Parts: sequence; C-alpha cells; structure tokens
Amino acid sequence: MRKVSDPTVSRLSLYLRILTELQEQGQSTVSSEELARRGGTTAAQVRKDLSFFGTFGKRGLGYGVPDLLAKLRSILGLERRWRVALVGLGKIGSALLGYQDFRRQGFHVEAVFDADPAKIGRRWDGLEVRSAAEMEDVLREQEIDIVIVAVPAEAAQEVVDRAVRAGVRGILNFAPTKLHVPPHVALRSVNMTVELEGLSYALSNGGREAAGRRSGVGGDRS
Amino acid sequence: MRKVSDPTVSRLSLYLRILTELQEQGQSTVSSEELARRGGTTAAQVRKDLSFFGTFGKRGLGYGVPDLLAKLRSILGLERRWRVALVGLGKIGSALLGYQDFRRQGFHVEAVFDADPAKIGRRWDGLEVRSAAEMEDVLREQEIDIVIVAVPAEAAQEVVDRAVRAGVRGILNFAPTKLHVPPHVALRSVNMTVELEGLSYALSNGGREAAGRRSGVGGDRS
Repeated sequence: MRKVSDPTVSRLSLYLRILTELQEQGQSTVSSEELARRGGTTAAQVRKDLSFFGTFGKRGLGYGVPDLLAKLRSILGLERRWRVALVGLGKIGSALLGYQDFRRQGFHVEAVFDADPAKIGRRWDGLEVRSAAEMEDVLREQEIDIVIVAVPAEAAQEVVDRAVRAGVRGILNFAPTKLHVPPHVALRSVNMTVELEGLSYALSNGGREAAGRRSGVGGDRS
Repeated sequence: MRKVSDPTVSRLSLYLRILTELQEQGQSTVSSEELARRGGTTAAQVRKDLSFFGTFGKRGLGYGVPDLLAKLRSILGLERRWRVALVGLGKIGSALLGYQDFRRQGFHVEAVFDADPAKIGRRWDGLEVRSAAEMEDVLREQEIDIVIVAVPAEAAQEVVDRAVRAGVRGILNFAPTKLHVPPHVALRSVNMTVELEGLSYALSNGGREAAGRRSGVGGDRS
C-alpha cells in the first residue's frame, strides 16, 4: 500500500461518518460528488482518497453504501476492539470516560489511572481507579493498545515513556505540550488551547486567513 | 503581512507555551535551536515561522524570551479579552466550562446555552444557563466573539448558522461533523473520534505511518 497522508486518513473518518448517516437514512448508493458535497471537499479528492485502497464503485453508479462502509471500517482498523487506558482523572479525563462515542467505535476504556490518593481505589464508570505507580504492570497485564494522556503538561512525557516501555503502541494526548515517541508508536494530539489561539489569530488578522482554511477535517493539505 | 499557513499558527502557539515555561524558569534568551529541540521541529523552521512577522533576535545571541513572548502574544491576538459563549452542556460542554486554561489565555465564557428545560435557568460556574431559543439575542447583546459548539452532530450546523447571523466571527466545533461557515468566519474543529481513528489506522497498518507524523502541533506541513 502506498503511503497515506494524515489528512487523507482524517477524511476517511469523515466519509465513514457521512456513510453511517446515509445508511441510517436508508440510502443504498452514493456518488463521489455527494460524498464531496457533504464532506466539504471535491469529487476528485474523494476519488483520490479512496483510490489509495483499490478501486471501489462502478462508473456512473457510484459506491454501494454498505460496501464502502465495511471497507472503510476495515481500512481504519475499526473491526477490532481496541483496549484503551486513561491516565489522569481531572475534568477532561472524567469527561472522556463518559464519552459514549468511543465505545461505539470499538475503543474500550479498560483501565484508569490517577496519582491522587483520594481517587485511587474508587470506582469510576465501573472501573477501579488504579495508582499511577502500577501503570506499567497493569498496561502489560491487560494488553492495552492505546493510552489517553490527560495529565498536566509537566507529567505527560513521563507517562508516555512509561506507557511505551509497557508495550503501548498508540497515544492520544490531551496535555498541552509536545510529546516524543519512538518511531513504532503512533501519537495524536488534541489541544483546545492551540485551536482557540488559531481562532484568536484569525479574528485578529482579518477573518478567515489561517483558521478558516482548517475548517473541520476536510482540508486540502494532503 | 504574507499569508500564514495554519500549521505555522499552531507552531506559534507551541513556541508561546515553551517560552512561557522558559520565563517561569528564569531563562532570559533562547536560540532557534533550543526552541526547535523543545518544539520537535528544526531551527530553520523556527526562523522561517518567526520571519513572517518581521525580524526578531540578534545573530549569535538568540531571542530575548520576554520580547518574543510579548510579540507572539500580540501576533496571536492574546492581548485582548475574547468573549466566548458555550452552546451545549452535555459531558463535553460541562468539562469545557471548567477548563481553567481558557481564561488564563484570555478566553472568557460569558454565556451558556442549552436546549434542555431541566438545565435552563440553573447556574453553572456562576453563569445562568440560557435557553437555546434566545441565542441570537444574547450573542448580540453580549457582543460574543467566539462560540464553542458542543451539541450533537445533527444540531451543530443550525447553531453555527444562527451564531453567524448574530455576528459571531469564530467557531470552535466539538460536534463530530463537517460544518460550513461564510468566508469571514473562522472555524476550528476538535474531533476526538477522528484522532482515535487515526491511531487505529496507524496501529492496523504497521505503526507510525499516518498518525505518527502528526505528532503534536510541530508537523512540517506548512
């Protein structure tokens, strides 16, 4: 398979969401033009994105919705169950734990850690909060794939280093800091402050400019 | 001023965070090499990013930390107070309301809306929850600059359209959907599901690939 850029993968997620809606509405086929319109991109971009993974659809008939859905779920690795651990039960961490969409997409939070003795041992959404000190052991034992880092910035790199040593291959970072991982580990960051500062920049410098072009995940930067 | 790409603006946010740390530690100057190392980018990239906004620093001496901090805060529009409204008080919305970093950076949540009659009229972090039906009036009255959208996907576009009609110029979207705004409005999206699916893709397709390259905000896509 050719190298696939990150914006392409993000657009695949978006197509998946659109197709799920179409299926719920009982629509059985969709053209690249309709996918493009709903996704805020171009039909050529849609065809290019899907071409990375072989040809789908029939010229003039469009894509079969259930087929394309199944193929996208397979490409994105969503047919399996991912074992997720959450580190840090502050405001953001607690909110994430209740976020139902995770589970629906196959991301199951199976371990929760905090450093606060007042939280350790308590139950949270059916899970016992474990001490951050036990992290490596629990991550290994439970064969965790992905760690969500929701600790303060200054503690984040240490959490990541320990998770990587325990065999974790994916990190979703919410701490407002740049993290480093070895090449075999995937890292994604969600940083609301950076997004807000992008808005602030755009508003201060006459509207659209930088922030506007990043409208959602349908950007054209691939 | 030349057109500045979105990844450049995101890196400016990152430099701001690094410089804030350096200042707290009492360091008075910093080289582009040190900024690059801490930011996970190259010294050439740092110099290029900062060159958009005129020349700073002295050859061989680096940048003065307080000077560069002030300049970055000014470039990013962080010297003023931004008036923010939050629409949607579900799990994510409630967590956002308690997120202290917003206020520290000058983003003040001054109005909160929900459609649930059980929530309307109650107080939340010192703010009375207003009915979503009153949104346009309140947004205009309070001269809100930025609206944070934390409603379900199917309700998001309508909220955005109404906010735009009420004069809002910036949208921070947490709903898992693609939104459309007119050219004069800036839009940024935070979508955890897309990030998790990016990790899932990377883990399914042999490690780093797509997700790894988007490590934090220091990517080289400008």
